[in-house]
Amino acid sequence: MPRTINGRPAAPPPPPRAAAWRALEEHQRRLAGVTLTDLFAGDAGRFERFSFNVADLLVDFSKHRLTGETLGLLLDLAQAAGVAETRDAMFAGEPVNSTEGRAVLHVALRNRSERPMHVDGVDVMPQVRDVLAHMQRFSASVRGGEWRGYAGDRITDVVNIGIGGSHLGPQMVVRALRPYADGPRLHLVSNVDGAAIHDTLAGLNPATTLFLVASKTFTTLETMTNAHTARRWLVADAGNEAAVTRHFAALSTNLEAVAAFGIDPGNVFAFWDWVGGRYSLWSAIGLSIALAVGFERFEELLAGAYAVDEHFRQTPLAHNVPVLMGLLNVWYGNFWDAETWAVLPYDESLTYLPAYLQQASMESNGKSVTREGQPVTWQTGPVVWGQPGTDGQHAFFQLLHQGTKLIPADFIVAAKPQHPLTEHHDILLANFLAQTEALMLGRSLEESGSAAKSFPGNRPTTSIVLPRLTPRALGSLVALYEHAIFTQGVVWDVNSFDQMGVELGKELAKKLVSEVQRGEPAAGAHDASTAGLLSAISAMRRNRE
Amino acid sequence: MPRTINGRPAAPPPPPRAAAWRALEEHQRRLAGVTLTDLFAGDAGRFERFSFNVADLLVDFSKHRLTGETLGLLLDLAQAAGVAETRDAMFAGEPVNSTEGRAVLHVALRNRSERPMHVDGVDVMPQVRDVLAHMQRFSASVRGGEWRGYAGDRITDVVNIGIGGSHLGPQMVVRALRPYADGPRLHLVSNVDGAAIHDTLAGLNPATTLFLVASKTFTTLETMTNAHTARRWLVADAGNEAAVTRHFAALSTNLEAVAAFGIDPGNVFAFWDWVGGRYSLWSAIGLSIALAVGFERFEELLAGAYAVDEHFRQTPLAHNVPVLMGLLNVWYGNFWDAETWAVLPYDESLTYLPAYLQQASMESNGKSVTREGQPVTWQTGPVVWGQPGTDGQHAFFQLLHQGTKLIPADFIVAAKPQHPLTEHHDILLANFLAQTEALMLGRSLEESGSAAKSFPGNRPTTSIVLPRLTPRALGSLVALYEHAIFTQGVVWDVNSFDQMGVELGKELAKKLVSEVQRGEPAAGAHDASTAGLLSAISAMRRNRE
Repeated sequence: MPRTINGRPAAPPPPPRAAAWRALEEHQRRLAGVTLTDLFAGDAGRFERFSFNVADLLVDFSKHRLTGETLGLLLDLAQAAGVAETRDAMFAGEPVNSTEGRAVLHVALRNRSERPMHVDGVDVMPQVRDVLAHMQRFSASVRGGEWRGYAGDRITDVVNIGIGGSHLGPQMVVRALRPYADGPRLHLVSNVDGAAIHDTLAGLNPATTLFLVASKTFTTLETMTNAHTARRWLVADAGNEAAVTRHFAALSTNLEAVAAFGIDPGNVFAFWDWVGGRYSLWSAIGLSIALAVGFERFEELLAGAYAVDEHFRQTPLAHNVPVLMGLLNVWYGNFWDAETWAVLPYDESLTYLPAYLQQASMESNGKSVTREGQPVTWQTGPVVWGQPGTDGQHAFFQLLHQGTKLIPADFIVAAKPQHPLTEHHDILLANFLAQTEALMLGRSLEESGSAAKSFPGNRPTTSIVLPRLTPRALGSLVALYEHAIFTQGVVWDVNSFDQMGVELGKELAKKLVSEVQRGEPAAGAHDASTAGLLSAISAMRRNRE
Repeated sequence: MPRTINGRPAAPPPPPRAAAWRALEEHQRRLAGVTLTDLFAGDAGRFERFSFNVADLLVDFSKHRLTGETLGLLLDLAQAAGVAETRDAMFAGEPVNSTEGRAVLHVALRNRSERPMHVDGVDVMPQVRDVLAHMQRFSASVRGGEWRGYAGDRITDVVNIGIGGSHLGPQMVVRALRPYADGPRLHLVSNVDGAAIHDTLAGLNPATTLFLVASKTFTTLETMTNAHTARRWLVADAGNEAAVTRHFAALSTNLEAVAAFGIDPGNVFAFWDWVGGRYSLWSAIGLSIALAVGFERFEELLAGAYAVDEHFRQTPLAHNVPVLMGLLNVWYGNFWDAETWAVLPYDESLTYLPAYLQQASMESNGKSVTREGQPVTWQTGPVVWGQPGTDGQHAFFQLLHQGTKLIPADFIVAAKPQHPLTEHHDILLANFLAQTEALMLGRSLEESGSAAKSFPGNRPTTSIVLPRLTPRALGSLVALYEHAIFTQGVVWDVNSFDQMGVELGKELAKKLVSEVQRGEPAAGAHDASTAGLLSAISAMRRNRE
């Protein structure tokens, strides 16, 4: 079966990328018979050459199928694709989100310098600083107990209602920074499945609960459905609608809809169309983070990201860590047939990082048309997946070690723990090191004595070490991934900043709601499967059991 | 670049599978130009033909790239591979775990009939019933408050300490059955990362906490490290070691080690070497489930699985739902180049199902040698991944709709909710239906008017509908997946029941612990990367910041 991309024969991209692409294909064939062990044996300086410091992080690429020549060819591809120019265009506020004609400037949100950053000739930094100051005042007021609920009580619990980028960022960060949590308890509700809001409200007291409704447009179906359920719950307890102003704030740009909901305009936190949902934790969407761990910690998170932004902006591509990280994904995805990319934090606190990066990567680069609107004939974004180690070792690592798929994997660990259990951390670190070693070394039939107990080895991995999982280190880690994902998108020539692929399902769902409520499909509106499922579901719902 | 499997050229399996395999390759080429929409247009009875009831579940395969001919050829392959014979051998207690010479008889754990089930000529059902009776007594005693802690208090919290199968099953089931939870609060600790046990203990009172230590061998490094930390915490509070007997129970077969730990032999729950870790939630490992929701609910879970076992055991392959489900995975993985398989529960309560099935599938079929010890030259187990909908729609669904990868996906929903928020559930159901419809239909350039807004469509999905997420329906759902995974393993000719791939990393980690503690790598013991990372980590740990 010939390889196809959405039904078209696979082929390299056209010029200017074609020459470097073909050189990499050629190079891959030469490297296919060389193992990682061979590469280490042949080069005593390999670790020093291929490991890098960026901000406070150590990033080791030396356990990858690459040589100096590989990197040179990948950098040729990056140059042909215009990675540096597109990066500069992003920082300059140009409309690199081409389909929507928008700037992409989440880097402005964490610009800790005095440097202005422009969109359409206007410096956005004063607005950014205004919103930060507003977040600081508001979070201090709630955390300090000056802000009171309708009955005069302090706020003990905050519920962030949002979905996608308005959920995954706060969820991931607040879980990661749990040792810093000294504010109200944070809960997050995203799914329209009523179990989410139902179970959350069941444990809360309306008089001491503050809701943050996070939706840029204030029309997101899931978020508004959950927000209205929360509002009804509060009003039923308070006995009047005026209480809404004391218990709801909005992270939104739709002032009119926010006011209609009953939220005080003074408690609306703005962001801008140059902040994409999947880059929004750095914006007002981060208010839940500031409430949970304090605004100072939120600023440290921004500062950590800023350090990597500066590295990304100023460092030549050959030493630019996020660029190299992105190019390695291109290397495996386009030249070694890898379909997926595993993110394996050896850190219980980074439980939600894989899900966060799933959105960051798959929504950005899960595309099939070029920036010029032509169908791609090459692979674009990988499937990102993972779970924390050491848990994964007792679950899916079997396939990493002995399966038939090539799965490049990122291993992430903090050198120092956030708890006093040193023995646990020693064992965790030993496992972190042992796994990338085992994936590389393998074990031959001669050594193991049994086919079932032998390991092919030669599995490529990146190791990322944080000194400690601080707000600053976390900010750096996330920014590193963001820019690696950016780099991939430029090489693949896709617009990494829209998400048109979510629209069709939304439209069809809107039509289906009334049919679900009526309990039968509209005549002729659906294929036999969709109609049949709807009828079967309706019959089950009518069954009183 | 020619396709390779661990460095060997890809090729079909030898006889007896070869003929059916080649016929499927041929058939795939003919079907490659046909869309799902074409298939529905050409066959008014398609939904009825390709949707099935099994136990209380509805399973719809009609949105797949298949015709009657496809199913016929897949069934030829299943027959050539001996799926029915291997299934019968499993139920007969034969050592189908060939590398370890063990029976695979988790189906005995949920055998609700009077039928004996034999291993080595001995009926195991009396032992199974004994342990179930023990679980019933113990859980009733703890839940009823007869069981008391060292200071005479009732147990309010249960902590399950286990990893892999001793964690993922209870975690998934107890989360799914939260509306039924009327016993002590359940906490689960798996990761050796000290953050897990540290954060869990921080919220608990030793005098009212019961620990279940779940490790077949009672030597699992992570589990025993966590168990000893928990033991120290308890003893420090109680002031004596005798308290251990009132606060620890073991799910294990190593009676000697359990006694040395200080656990009363009367509080040890046995299981057997014919219960693999990833099939153990049905065994004594399910004790945490019985404690949380009650033994009657645990029995309903078993009964739901039993209903599917009986279907799997007795139904001809052509109508055997788990067999068909497994064959569809073979179809995409081996004939359409799909590397992954997405599990997308439209149910917040099934949050942990994808991680559970990751282990169930990837540890079972992430293999590279045949049952006869020959290297495979065909793809085996897929990467399993997923998150609940509707959340995924706002994250990675972009790639499902518009990316370059073919990702078969299972959509799962309950017709009726476990909460009173009907409006939420209507919207959830509408989204469930809309997504598989959108993935199939796509939207042409002519319809959308823009390349970025068009969708290739023709994405295959399975829809699974439960009447309601009851213990019984959950048991059926999990058993359905287990047997589908079994079927795949037989077709691929791998031993789905060992997990040799986890051993090498364990061995290397054991050696590395002392080097981590010493703070420097042993001379010449490692590649430059592993040694370099260890040195860098040690330097960071010495830094007092």
